[in-house]
Amino acid sequence: MSQTADPPTYRVVFQPSGRQGVVPAGTNLLDAARRLGVEIEAICSGKQTCGKCQVTVEEGSFLKHGVTSAAAHLTPPDGREAHYFEKHPPLPGRRLACACEVLGDVLISVPEESQARKQVVRKAATERAITVDPAIRLCYVEVEPPTLEHQLGDWDRIAAELATRFGLHNVRLDPVLLPSVQGIVRAGDWKVTATVWQEREVLRLQPGYAEEAYGLAVDIGTTTIAMHLCDLRTGAVLATASRMNPQVAYGEDLMSRVSYCDNRADGLATLHDAIIAALNELAAEAADEAGINPDAITEIVLVGNSVMHHILLNISPAELGQSPFGPAISDAVDIKARDLGLKLAAGAQAHVLPLEAGHVGADNVAVILAEEPDKAPADEVWLIVDVGTNGELLLGNRERLFSASSPTGPAFEGAQIRHGMRAAPGAIERVRVDPETLDVRFKVIARDEWSDAWDAGTQEHGDAATAEARRGRKRAALLGQGPILAAGICGSGIIEAVAELFMAGVITPDGRFAPEITAPRLIWQGAKAEFVLAWPHESSTGREIVVTSDDVRNIQLGKAALYSGARLLMERMGVERVDRVLLAGAFGSYIDARHAMVLGMIPDCDLARVATVGNSAGDGARMALLNRGLREEARRLARWTQYIGIALEPRFQETFVEAMPLPHATDPYPHLAGVLAAAGAHRQARGVADVALARNRRRLAHTAG
Amino acid sequence: MSQTADPPTYRVVFQPSGRQGVVPAGTNLLDAARRLGVEIEAICSGKQTCGKCQVTVEEGSFLKHGVTSAAAHLTPPDGREAHYFEKHPPLPGRRLACACEVLGDVLISVPEESQARKQVVRKAATERAITVDPAIRLCYVEVEPPTLEHQLGDWDRIAAELATRFGLHNVRLDPVLLPSVQGIVRAGDWKVTATVWQEREVLRLQPGYAEEAYGLAVDIGTTTIAMHLCDLRTGAVLATASRMNPQVAYGEDLMSRVSYCDNRADGLATLHDAIIAALNELAAEAADEAGINPDAITEIVLVGNSVMHHILLNISPAELGQSPFGPAISDAVDIKARDLGLKLAAGAQAHVLPLEAGHVGADNVAVILAEEPDKAPADEVWLIVDVGTNGELLLGNRERLFSASSPTGPAFEGAQIRHGMRAAPGAIERVRVDPETLDVRFKVIARDEWSDAWDAGTQEHGDAATAEARRGRKRAALLGQGPILAAGICGSGIIEAVAELFMAGVITPDGRFAPEITAPRLIWQGAKAEFVLAWPHESSTGREIVVTSDDVRNIQLGKAALYSGARLLMERMGVERVDRVLLAGAFGSYIDARHAMVLGMIPDCDLARVATVGNSAGDGARMALLNRGLREEARRLARWTQYIGIALEPRFQETFVEAMPLPHATDPYPHLAGVLAAAGAHRQARGVADVALARNRRRLAHTAG
Repeated sequence: MSQTADPPTYRVVFQPSGRQGVVPAGTNLLDAARRLGVEIEAICSGKQTCGKCQVTVEEGSFLKHGVTSAAAHLTPPDGREAHYFEKHPPLPGRRLACACEVLGDVLISVPEESQARKQVVRKAATERAITVDPAIRLCYVEVEPPTLEHQLGDWDRIAAELATRFGLHNVRLDPVLLPSVQGIVRAGDWKVTATVWQEREVLRLQPGYAEEAYGLAVDIGTTTIAMHLCDLRTGAVLATASRMNPQVAYGEDLMSRVSYCDNRADGLATLHDAIIAALNELAAEAADEAGINPDAITEIVLVGNSVMHHILLNISPAELGQSPFGPAISDAVDIKARDLGLKLAAGAQAHVLPLEAGHVGADNVAVILAEEPDKAPADEVWLIVDVGTNGELLLGNRERLFSASSPTGPAFEGAQIRHGMRAAPGAIERVRVDPETLDVRFKVIARDEWSDAWDAGTQEHGDAATAEARRGRKRAALLGQGPILAAGICGSGIIEAVAELFMAGVITPDGRFAPEITAPRLIWQGAKAEFVLAWPHESSTGREIVVTSDDVRNIQLGKAALYSGARLLMERMGVERVDRVLLAGAFGSYIDARHAMVLGMIPDCDLARVATVGNSAGDGARMALLNRGLREEARRLARWTQYIGIALEPRFQETFVEAMPLPHATDPYPHLAGVLAAAGAHRQARGVADVALARNRRRLAHTAG
Repeated sequence: MSQTADPPTYRVVFQPSGRQGVVPAGTNLLDAARRLGVEIEAICSGKQTCGKCQVTVEEGSFLKHGVTSAAAHLTPPDGREAHYFEKHPPLPGRRLACACEVLGDVLISVPEESQARKQVVRKAATERAITVDPAIRLCYVEVEPPTLEHQLGDWDRIAAELATRFGLHNVRLDPVLLPSVQGIVRAGDWKVTATVWQEREVLRLQPGYAEEAYGLAVDIGTTTIAMHLCDLRTGAVLATASRMNPQVAYGEDLMSRVSYCDNRADGLATLHDAIIAALNELAAEAADEAGINPDAITEIVLVGNSVMHHILLNISPAELGQSPFGPAISDAVDIKARDLGLKLAAGAQAHVLPLEAGHVGADNVAVILAEEPDKAPADEVWLIVDVGTNGELLLGNRERLFSASSPTGPAFEGAQIRHGMRAAPGAIERVRVDPETLDVRFKVIARDEWSDAWDAGTQEHGDAATAEARRGRKRAALLGQGPILAAGICGSGIIEAVAELFMAGVITPDGRFAPEITAPRLIWQGAKAEFVLAWPHESSTGREIVVTSDDVRNIQLGKAALYSGARLLMERMGVERVDRVLLAGAFGSYIDARHAMVLGMIPDCDLARVATVGNSAGDGARMALLNRGLREEARRLARWTQYIGIALEPRFQETFVEAMPLPHATDPYPHLAGVLAAAGAHRQARGVADVALARNRRRLAHTAG
């Protein structure tokens, strides 16, 4: 007996990771990649069906002398690979990694689209990449049909292949899929693609080879629901849908929802059914927009404040409404979508992010995921204000992070505002008031030009508008004919309007319309007044769109809640100022940092370091949808963040009252005075400076005393 | 700094296991037991609430010299233990193990009721102990209520206690229980008992300390459903319920059920809904009998043949009805009871045992669990015949086990028999025919004395019964007044009747009534006849209860199917005879081995080694309910057992025809001839001997040729 010689070994180098190693001759290139920790996508795991494992074979100077082509160091394409490339013509130099065996040293490039963990860029003020590493994975398998001698079940054959080819042992089939197994394997001619969740359960079976894997990320706000439909393979957002939370009909703020549940036998069921119905409709809408079927959606990740979270899960929010405000569960919840009443894939999973406390919910955890204050340098203090009907605050850095909840009211989402509306086409989202003429120009959602550039048409002022002209415009707007006109004011619009009116002196620091001002747009009704933003000819309703005294008061209450919350957290942390402010919220378009600051929504900060980041909670939900590791991170962050019940702080009432004036009456704000002066609002800048001066005097006196 | 001395150590011995070891002074006795592998029950895990960990402190000669009481070697009872024993006075010498710390050498007895894995005896022909080690475990925990500072969710507090006190990390709550958590922990004053399934999911939460843990074991037969309700803590059977499978209305045998599903759009749904409704009714009935609420039932284990299995799981049985008869799934199925439509505890789990092949189902796996042919000595051959509408056969020993399915028809369950009925009060279950007088005596279920000892009353024969007397008896029977009379014939009754009539010469070996016989009980109608078992005055219907020519034919077809199946398996295994025969089935009471042999249901065997074991499949289901390890064993056995498609064997038709005569026409049966002779059936014994002789001659001729 002669001794068998060890096979020769060769060096394989993968780019761009640079990972390399030595493998025995004949090693499959996909296996070599796995062994070296290079993650290459492969739905079919070597069946030469999916084409996902394409790599480019590079020439390289490291190759052994005399070899002119690295390609010769791999087995040549066989019939199956050739057949694949015949149907899907490749770029030059491309091979299917699963079809190559190593016969010599090779240098391999793994193109972006073949990498298993792709990255997608989150488009926000702070661009950040999300690594696509979802909880689900597609696995294509081919099984032998049963025979009279081998009557093993169809599922068992699939399970065996998942174990052998994908190393997925102990994967179970969601048992509600059992009725469909035999039809699907036969429809796919004994080939199926399994959607495997968390390496342990098959949520969906598709006949034949398939690449369909979709998920939803949802932010359930008190007033607004926002949903993204994503491709879980690429991370792409395929559709976005939003609508008013239908629970608004049963109470505008959280406490009135809690009361509704408490006071009626069917209260919880009514609110739960309402949100589930809305989610089903939104999912259908998003799926329709993306051209897919809702039953192709296998995952949904949901965030919301604690009350929304409890009602979603059919849990009474009663305990959240009374001291000590304990939730039923803080931890993340994995639940079958069907057990919630959601109409997605039969086996679809729902994941609800964890809560931080009774009044700081999963939406805030999502904000942390999206904005990463837990990664802020230790010598900086970040403040994140999530503006919603319930405002949530985060303050801190990588060493400590405090959270709080603040009852903002729905004004920033356009509710409890006379002409407020959801961020939808026609909503006024930008406002400019000329401090000299007090004239106004504005922009509405879904129309590019500012209102002063709109085709003038007949200039109708006030009562000059004829009933007929109004009806004509209204009909045209309803029919989608003609340009989009103003229909109301969304959150960012009302913020800008009040801030601009304050800077122009139309609104005084105490929030009243300045009595000395007369202007065609300022209409007095006793002690109160309305300021016209849009004339009837600029509106699709054919009536003026105005900002009222009550609107200003509601904005003041909301911003005072946010501001005083932030101040109390700063006191708790023992800091005098913040180094960075992020304004998050689903109020429409991104609000202007300057207007937020002028309005006094936030403490003083270098304007260059104040950013509005849109719906961070929704972004965080999307990140948790696309990356399973972030779900574990969210659980850790929810426990780590320290909740402060600001309403219980002794100085809450005092701070709140101090925060009511515009911009506010507490801060030494050096930046804010500059901002106002730069905007030409010199009187207001002086006011701010006076306040700061008075405060500093008090402080000096206090220190001296 | 002085060095700390190691604490002294002491010897602890546990009886009856004899396990012993040395532990440091101050070790908790329950912890000591756990460390030494002594399993003591403890629902509260040291809270001195459940009292389950009671042990007896024994005197022992091994104790150190001069010590007069072992009790002194443990810390004395504290207030909480004293409080427990005040409310629950103990036997002498008893202590709560969780309340004792070891202060010296001790000898401890763990009484039967404190052992964690109790044993219950399965009452069957072969008495066998079942170790009670269920998939669920009760865990009593006490949690701190939330405060304004610590708002962790109520469930999270429970989960933390399960981890700390029971070592149960990563236990999730069935999310459908989330809505009930807060109410339950408050109702229990922050004490709850969790029903934990497989160390990973809480299926139920009960307020305060609770010992309730119930499960169902179900055998879904083609004709009969049998259910046991068990206490999962003690293993006791609390109630038993059975009823006709309502699917019988849609087809008596399996193939007609498959056709019903195939031919109607709502066929599967109809049959699925029917079985689920029946299971819900049976569960309610059993719960009622045991005095518990069905929503206290947290587990259900189900077995059934493949078609019943598929319909239960809402899977079309179409593939089981056509070659190659592949099932959708072979492996065991864990599914939420609610996903099947079962109305048990909201979080209840259903476990369905695995299938062996397309035509050998979970019921047969349960029979293996119950009868353990896989443990039979290698030099023996065991045959197990599970008599149902679909008969299932097992042949082999620890080295090899073959299984087969045989279309028996429902005659053995009392169906397709003129006066057949389910095993219920009034069913004739035993029959004796006097070979001289051809007179009959019988026994009915739920009445102890044989019919010849019944109070004679008015002796009415045949037409002598007046309509009024009939109506009176019928009314009395319906009202439950007066003694139970014969209502029909169950499976064991028809087997005995036909066997007795054959031995008495009333039925000939070819299955016809002997034309030469005249007797008052034998009523001829042309070429066919009926034999009267019960006269009108003995019956609750007021009419004769008879055995007809067609009944005999159906029994012949059924027993020929069983017998020929067994012969073909023996041929496949290459054995000439079997060493042990077990007859299983839900045919009523245990059938008499002798009658089964005389009828030719089974191959020849020493009568002393033939036993009837009742509903083995039901027993196996109960074992799997009580012992989680047996569920894994069942999965292994289902893969290991080798299925033989006997209908495909070339000799099937021939063997079947040979098996039609009574007892049969194939065997060299030495034992059978003796059995017949002993019963005084000399002519029949001679007939058997003649057949054997002829067969041996043929065989000799064949060998010579």
